[in-house]
Amino acid sequence: MDKLTIKTLAKELQLSVSTISKALRDSHEISAATKRKVLALAEQLNYSPNPYASSLRKRKSKTIGVVIPEVVNSFFSQAINGIESVAKEKGYHVLIYLTHENLDNEKAILKDFESGRVDGVLLSASRETINSTHISGLIKKDVPVIFFDRVFDDVETVKVITNDFESAYTATKHLITSGCKNPHFLSIISNLNIISNRIDGYKKALQEHHIKFSNSNIINCTTNWEHNYKLLLKKMQSSKKPDGILCSIENLSVLIYQVCEDLNIKIPDDLQIVSFSNLDTASFLNPPLTTVTQPAYEIGSVAAATLVKALEKKNFIIPNENIVIPSVLIKRKSTKNKILS
Amino acid sequence: MDKLTIKTLAKELQLSVSTISKALRDSHEISAATKRKVLALAEQLNYSPNPYASSLRKRKSKTIGVVIPEVVNSFFSQAINGIESVAKEKGYHVLIYLTHENLDNEKAILKDFESGRVDGVLLSASRETINSTHISGLIKKDVPVIFFDRVFDDVETVKVITNDFESAYTATKHLITSGCKNPHFLSIISNLNIISNRIDGYKKALQEHHIKFSNSNIINCTTNWEHNYKLLLKKMQSSKKPDGILCSIENLSVLIYQVCEDLNIKIPDDLQIVSFSNLDTASFLNPPLTTVTQPAYEIGSVAAATLVKALEKKNFIIPNENIVIPSVLIKRKSTKNKILS
Repeated sequence: MDKLTIKTLAKELQLSVSTISKALRDSHEISAATKRKVLALAEQLNYSPNPYASSLRKRKSKTIGVVIPEVVNSFFSQAINGIESVAKEKGYHVLIYLTHENLDNEKAILKDFESGRVDGVLLSASRETINSTHISGLIKKDVPVIFFDRVFDDVETVKVITNDFESAYTATKHLITSGCKNPHFLSIISNLNIISNRIDGYKKALQEHHIKFSNSNIINCTTNWEHNYKLLLKKMQSSKKPDGILCSIENLSVLIYQVCEDLNIKIPDDLQIVSFSNLDTASFLNPPLTTVTQPAYEIGSVAAATLVKALEKKNFIIPNENIVIPSVLIKRKSTKNKILS
Repeated sequence: MDKLTIKTLAKELQLSVSTISKALRDSHEISAATKRKVLALAEQLNYSPNPYASSLRKRKSKTIGVVIPEVVNSFFSQAINGIESVAKEKGYHVLIYLTHENLDNEKAILKDFESGRVDGVLLSASRETINSTHISGLIKKDVPVIFFDRVFDDVETVKVITNDFESAYTATKHLITSGCKNPHFLSIISNLNIISNRIDGYKKALQEHHIKFSNSNIINCTTNWEHNYKLLLKKMQSSKKPDGILCSIENLSVLIYQVCEDLNIKIPDDLQIVSFSNLDTASFLNPPLTTVTQPAYEIGSVAAATLVKALEKKNFIIPNENIVIPSVLIKRKSTKNKILS
């Protein structure tokens, strides 16, 4: 255990222990300037308040922290249900934390966990996350972290994922065999594995069918709906407009339907669409959406079961392994579903 | 502050303080039988562990607990975004707790809050919740609770709601003026205000148009998809089958589309549909779904802003009032949208 105490901070800043303690508790008795100084040093030295309470509660809070980018997404809401089914059976509380795809939020949440608020963590990284350095603090403090869906390979832990490369490959192949000559990839800018794996799968299918890949085949969206709408509108009016789209993010499929409606583009005649999506309504869209449906519930429940094992088995060492649960391509009427010779 | 301590429990049960303490911390040194005995008494006496830590942290955790039934629902995911927008600005963490529509879960979560895990609570009750007695413990301990959407009138606090009665009335009137002679109400069994208010609004519109109401007009679903599917299938094949449905729960609208597809019922020719729904995909369903769209984001942000005010203003007394933010009827092609004379 870390020997850094409140006294270390007091000595370093030449303040009383009581002042440091009050500053950390955000007391009104302490000036804002002093609070800033104390918090800055605490952060610099990686000091977590309340180590005593923390150790008392260690692995006793019976609480799992789930850190995800958002909930307006069927994948994550189904994954949560999978996590909760296991947690409930094993007597754990589940706390859900949203990063809103923001790396600073993710860092703040994980930092907060260092003081012992949760026994273990299930993490799906934000789209801004570029590496796993901010996770090391937790792991040093012996708080187990299991990744799911959006993972980083350099962290030695269990990662529960789906077969993103193969799924994107199969989906793109389906677009091509259904007649697409110019399938595009609609996604977000991100360093996430899931995105690069999907792009690689998409590229492999293009290569196999002798379709030349250029960077302009990748349409990169942001979190701003207006921006994305204009981007796609422009793309669909360009001379080299796509005749097929593999949509890598569930929420963007609604954007495509909107642009098609506004430009009077017929799906699937003028544009074929496949989306990574767990939308309940996929079958009832006009036309029904062909989807790569991910095993969201299973991914959540397997990740939770692994974490509970790590928390409850004495001397259990979390293996450094990928658990891959495959996705399923469900063909509906947004693609032509005919095999061209 | 409550004077009940761990010593009281020890004396009552004729056990050592150390045994009680270990039992409460779920130590492996204590037998299951003893743990049960200790926990039963703790519950009976309304004892929360760690009152010292609790008072230390009181209103200092900078954390808001959000308790909701589920996240597979656009209303709640949008409300969370509204809550988080305010919380972030004011420097609060948000913890999301799901009850899965289960009253025991809701009780356990609120009980857990009594030990000071959060500064204040935003609560939307489960469908099983029948009264607010389980909330009194929190309020006694001076943890502010603000209700949103699914509220109970007998708790003296702010309730942020939408105009359920008027919305259901307007939606039903829209069905009737579009030609429905036999509009039904699709919902869940529940004591929740939102359901009874919507039913009352529905009934008022029927009465105004001299359509006789009978209990069989209300179709009550459960949490079991299979059961609901069979129920609606049977209803739609009966002699007095509905020619219009006001769907009170977003997720049930997908069920109606499924049953219509399977029975080859044409929407809106054979059946007109309006649903309380914040679905992103409503416009792109086949046909596009007429919705009562709730101000979910605003309800969340107003509830959060009120809670933060209660937490930060000294001597602020939470008023006993309803804040009503109206919903909007968005007419799409699942209803005929013609005014009959």
